[in-house]
Amino acid sequence: MNMNTVTLTTDFGLADGYAGIMHGVIRGICPNVFIVDLTHQVPPQDVRSAAYLLYTAYPYFPADTTHCIVVDPGVGTARRAVAVETRRGRFVAPDNGVLSYVLAREPVTTAVNLTDPRYHLPHVSQTFHGRDIFAPVTAHLACRVPLIDLGEPATELTTFPVPGISATPGNTLAGQVIHVDRFGNLITSIGHLLWHGDELLVQPAFPIPGREKDDPWPPSFSANKARIHIGGQLIKGIQPTYGAVLPGELLALVGSAGHLEIALADGNAAKALDLGAGDQVILEVNGR
Amino acid sequence: MNMNTVTLTTDFGLADGYAGIMHGVIRGICPNVFIVDLTHQVPPQDVRSAAYLLYTAYPYFPADTTHCIVVDPGVGTARRAVAVETRRGRFVAPDNGVLSYVLAREPVTTAVNLTDPRYHLPHVSQTFHGRDIFAPVTAHLACRVPLIDLGEPATELTTFPVPGISATPGNTLAGQVIHVDRFGNLITSIGHLLWHGDELLVQPAFPIPGREKDDPWPPSFSANKARIHIGGQLIKGIQPTYGAVLPGELLALVGSAGHLEIALADGNAAKALDLGAGDQVILEVNGR
Amino acid sequence: MNMNTVTLTTDFGLADGYAGIMHGVIRGICPNVFIVDLTHQVPPQDVRSAAYLLYTAYPYFPADTTHCIVVDPGVGTARRAVAVETRRGRFVAPDNGVLSYVLAREPVTTAVNLTDPRYHLPHVSQTFHGRDIFAPVTAHLACRVPLIDLGEPATELTTFPVPGISATPGNTLAGQVIHVDRFGNLITSIGHLLWHGDELLVQPAFPIPGREKDDPWPPSFSANKARIHIGGQLIKGIQPTYGAVLPGELLALVGSAGHLEIALADGNAAKALDLGAGDQVILEVNGR
Repeated sequence: MNMNTVTLTTDFGLADGYAGIMHGVIRGICPNVFIVDLTHQVPPQDVRSAAYLLYTAYPYFPADTTHCIVVDPGVGTARRAVAVETRRGRFVAPDNGVLSYVLAREPVTTAVNLTDPRYHLPHVSQTFHGRDIFAPVTAHLACRVPLIDLGEPATELTTFPVPGISATPGNTLAGQVIHVDRFGNLITSIGHLLWHGDELLVQPAFPIPGREKDDPWPPSFSANKARIHIGGQLIKGIQPTYGAVLPGELLALVGSAGHLEIALADGNAAKALDLGAGDQVILEVNGR
Repeated sequence: MNMNTVTLTTDFGLADGYAGIMHGVIRGICPNVFIVDLTHQVPPQDVRSAAYLLYTAYPYFPADTTHCIVVDPGVGTARRAVAVETRRGRFVAPDNGVLSYVLAREPVTTAVNLTDPRYHLPHVSQTFHGRDIFAPVTAHLACRVPLIDLGEPATELTTFPVPGISATPGNTLAGQVIHVDRFGNLITSIGHLLWHGDELLVQPAFPIPGREKDDPWPPSFSANKARIHIGGQLIKGIQPTYGAVLPGELLALVGSAGHLEIALADGNAAKALDLGAGDQVILEVNGR
Repeated sequence: MNMNTVTLTTDFGLADGYAGIMHGVIRGICPNVFIVDLTHQVPPQDVRSAAYLLYTAYPYFPADTTHCIVVDPGVGTARRAVAVETRRGRFVAPDNGVLSYVLAREPVTTAVNLTDPRYHLPHVSQTFHGRDIFAPVTAHLACRVPLIDLGEPATELTTFPVPGISATPGNTLAGQVIHVDRFGNLITSIGHLLWHGDELLVQPAFPIPGREKDDPWPPSFSANKARIHIGGQLIKGIQPTYGAVLPGELLALVGSAGHLEIALADGNAAKALDLGAGDQVILEVNGR
């Protein structure tokens, strides 16, 4: 029999043992489980970064994985704590939007508020719900407690709008910057882009109103002919790797999560262009 | 059958692979064990920080966990290495005080000096006992070698005094700062404090001479009426969360380990008050 | 039955979840495996540091461990990806020299280029072969796919020269600095040195042309009488620990990997002496 997998994503850092304590709580409740530290270095209280990171990772885990996310600026307030079941895993988190990307892609089978104290530690602190609520609930899920038992059904989940792709006139796609990584690379909502030889195929990461999800859109286009407009700059072509241009030059490429990404070779694109999440990007797919 | 759990706490950092090498040694001796990295980022050679961190973590692990702590300024000197058995787990460490909090709380069943070279690596270096002594001993314990087999009985263990709570006249409790975390929060010896509604109940973390351990003392008191005196400052009330006061204000709260903690909202209390471990704190439980 | 062990060594850091994603991919293919994060903090693209770190670690892992190394400046270029079998484990890595130390010590049983896409993820990106090629190949090996099935035999592997020890006239050994650790300690190719009381025995870490590997060479010598010449400095004696000299003094000792190491007590030897990898060191074994 295969052991279950649990992942942890927090902003606790690794210095204080908080993440390790969560391991202990989980193992005390569900001894035979593999625990993967997805990261404990989410920027403090940065719900959107955690949401993006989770989006890039969960598809690569087994479908019966239980993902526990504790980036929780509202700990100790009235914010709800939830568990959500999808065909691509279970998710345990504060109800603060950290599941926004997952919920934009995966239909929810069941969702509950974590209201049943039988699945929490006996004494719940005001400041460390990761240890006292999220870890024990995750452990019970990993050891096959039905999600519906954990509390009352959650009828509405908090999400922020997930930017996708929209069509604009003249064979162009419009999107936004959705994440700035620690190197200053600007990751945009235009994805997924899949390489096939020198062509790129668009398979929208999120449903686009009025279109079927797997409908290629637009038809595959030549990476060479792509033109990217962002922050008043024009970038010609989509490159296979960061090393394809000279230091100091802007380039566009397909990042590891399959999204169009703007980078500055040996530099920080976000700082150089003074851009960040929410700023617009246009991809012209048949430029000259 | 459940697999055993081992925890590692060191000051090795994560860059050089030293912690990973300990995983390898353990797995070579005891293949089917879960290894939790409690932290490898104890400040270099800071035995007291490691002792505090271990204190906050070990109660959350299964009782048959083997905890291995390698913060070892005396490596290569005559300091002893020990293994200690309690009802709350086994502990393997240099005999330098790093187990002080554990030993103040948990009666010792058995304690030995790690003198039997059969349970060490064949060649023991002068500089990396984590790999050559502590990891293999930990692995043998996790795989059911009786602790008493590891060496000669240890008749006395090195500890530093663990500050607790003492009563002072007029319904006040006196304690000390025992730890400064990386945010500059001052964690005091006054604990455990448990929230019940707006009241706080004192369950002393360590035995107090002349009192029964579980005797509530004083009776529960109102968080609102608490007055904290520290470093010439008066702090009114104990707050549920860090966000309860305005930026720049001092606040008292119950930290995640259940101890009274002094923080500066959006700031560093230790620096602002120029206080650290050993400095006195007074909790007046029925102030006006 | 014992579960297999996999190790990961990368320069991904821990902030972005890339290492965690590799855990997910591996666990999806080979659920019951232990994964050890040897380190994810290799200096970016520093193949030689990764090679040295792997050398210090792999001998401490079970012989059937699968080691996966992703320090890969050439990702997206024509560099090959390989898997190598030895009596001391399997190694999966880009063919860029990162296995140089391992290959200098361990005879290769089988080596292949990772050309069979059946053992990769269905879609291989241009920028994250750790996720798309190295992790799935590692997982298949850990779950007993024969190494020879993974691709075409590799007839030649890329290595850099591994400096060893050479004899010079007058009872001296010559070597080079092979690694500078993050404290500025200079680790030299003169190893392995094994302590026996106050004597040191040389067991060459790498074969020396014209000598048998296990032939002691020279016979054991007195640590006190050793004289080390490096960067125009003379260091007298080899010390058991870093603490053996006063702050500010240079010292020679046997590092945890068994190699002669030059350190500056409470300082940075590499900076103070302006030395680095490739610089020469002479060990005179019977000085006055």
